[in-house]
Amino acid sequence: MSTPRYDVIAIGNAIVDVMSPASDELIEELGMAKGGMTLIDEAGARDLYAAMGPAREISGGSAANTLAGLSALGAQCAFVGQVADDQLGQVFAHDIRAVGIDFDTPMRAGEPSTARCLIFVTPDGQRTMNTFLGASQFLPAAALNEEAIGGASILYLEGYLWDPEEPRRAMRSAIAAARAANRKVAFTLSDGFVIARYGDDFRALISEGLIDILFANEGELAALTGEDDLEAGLAAIGGQVETLVVTRSEQGAVAVRGAERAAVPAEPIAKVIDTTGAGDLFAAGFLFGTIREESLERCLKRGAIAAAEIISHYGARPEADLQALMAERLG
Amino acid sequence: MSTPRYDVIAIGNAIVDVMSPASDELIEELGMAKGGMTLIDEAGARDLYAAMGPAREISGGSAANTLAGLSALGAQCAFVGQVADDQLGQVFAHDIRAVGIDFDTPMRAGEPSTARCLIFVTPDGQRTMNTFLGASQFLPAAALNEEAIGGASILYLEGYLWDPEEPRRAMRSAIAAARAANRKVAFTLSDGFVIARYGDDFRALISEGLIDILFANEGELAALTGEDDLEAGLAAIGGQVETLVVTRSEQGAVAVRGAERAAVPAEPIAKVIDTTGAGDLFAAGFLFGTIREESLERCLKRGAIAAAEIISHYGARPEADLQALMAERLG
Repeated sequence: MSTPRYDVIAIGNAIVDVMSPASDELIEELGMAKGGMTLIDEAGARDLYAAMGPAREISGGSAANTLAGLSALGAQCAFVGQVADDQLGQVFAHDIRAVGIDFDTPMRAGEPSTARCLIFVTPDGQRTMNTFLGASQFLPAAALNEEAIGGASILYLEGYLWDPEEPRRAMRSAIAAARAANRKVAFTLSDGFVIARYGDDFRALISEGLIDILFANEGELAALTGEDDLEAGLAAIGGQVETLVVTRSEQGAVAVRGAERAAVPAEPIAKVIDTTGAGDLFAAGFLFGTIREESLERCLKRGAIAAAEIISHYGARPEADLQALMAERLG
Repeated sequence: MSTPRYDVIAIGNAIVDVMSPASDELIEELGMAKGGMTLIDEAGARDLYAAMGPAREISGGSAANTLAGLSALGAQCAFVGQVADDQLGQVFAHDIRAVGIDFDTPMRAGEPSTARCLIFVTPDGQRTMNTFLGASQFLPAAALNEEAIGGASILYLEGYLWDPEEPRRAMRSAIAAARAANRKVAFTLSDGFVIARYGDDFRALISEGLIDILFANEGELAALTGEDDLEAGLAAIGGQVETLVVTRSEQGAVAVRGAERAAVPAEPIAKVIDTTGAGDLFAAGFLFGTIREESLERCLKRGAIAAAEIISHYGARPEADLQALMAERLG
């Protein structure tokens, strides 16, 4: 049997989101940095869970969310990530396969359990995340299928997963495999804390020309470049990657590809319910346009449409028919 | 430490709902009876889960949902039900405690796992349920706190739990304890299949005067009485229980208490999203009015308001502020 030919293979954290509405007072009382992501250990997760309101469990994980969007749009995708052999691992595996994504990383026996992200969603729709990485951080390089990576148009990596050692090594191997096969590497910076810890690694990957498509929000771009000014940040990185995409929340997004530059406003939506996954789904829309070799502006527009869908409901996996939404809004 | 004095103690299945949107075609293809509840074993649950779309997990269980509504309205509640010592058991326990309900039935070690209900929700909002009872059916009579039952205004029991042997015995003990303390016993018939199997038990409980408040939908009343006509059904049971409450979906609900009779229309809602828990939340509203010794009509109206809230979103636990909703709609 030959390895299927994928549009996108992603390596990411395999996480189940545990989501609950919360007041701003609770965020403050628990000493959390609103809007941020904090890593917690199992004991911390237990304590925080006890302080959380009634919740619902929905599969998440940054790159996995991006693939769910890509798959909904019609792309062929595969995911590589580590779950434990437990109920939440079964939930994650079910949900990702149920949207047509190939996922065959074997479950990991024993402790720790499958990764969970405790997400407190305030009435303004902002999400405050607390992640217990659990099994996710033990993804071995052996889980990679280099033949599949070599055959995929795009290898997509999440910066969150650069933190633990084993997956970082796996991602370096994956980049080498993609490069050897002359495939594109896309990377999302994920969060300020990973840039604070691994900014030097990221800057080296970029300057060595190992990243083709880089996703960042404004804060992450500033953290990476040391430039608070958006234009200065774009100028600092724009020349080093083939495509640089910077999301700017309600101000839309901007992208630079060589001499080409485009920007789009945020898509209008009735009400922001939960911003979890907004960046992930933006990346999904953008990458889908990229696969289809569309204009930079159209890629951005797809990103904005997918992001608008995800923030209009709870959870970071698409619920509406993304293909129909795109058809309607792109014209 | 003295036992707290509860408004309502409920004994029910401790279930986590696994919910996914589904087409009518899928319901047919899988050979499910749309709108019904079917018991499945662990292997059946595995097969059906594999055929299900991406899902979300939200705590459920009929009586537990009712308590979640009662607690949101301000009642003091305790729940008795059996989960396994696994991740879904932790989810169930967390969610019920997080709304202020006392729940201290010890987790059960080993197999089977915590109960799950695979719920397929069609575009018309109808839910089709497939329940793997797992640990739930091993609730031992020893889990009961007879002192707490004796001190609670109402003991609430779900018919679903009459099926497995151990919980049935536990419920019989609980009824005896409530009776001995001169407390009210409320019972919901739950589903046609339990009436088909245990109708004789239920009719005996009723004729022996062991049930004070009986909840049924029209179909269940017909199954219990053998009378297809609503009026004939009401007449057959109405004289044997203190209060009989019959829910009629979009036709509202009717209740009979001695010579008193009242009916309410269904509350208007913008769109039916998911009917899971409609009957459970109707019971919550009705029981809350009962605790406050309100008129039969006002009790029914509270039931209709709580049911309307639950069918306007996914999941069988309230999301909106029920107290505020009641204040607004009851005037």
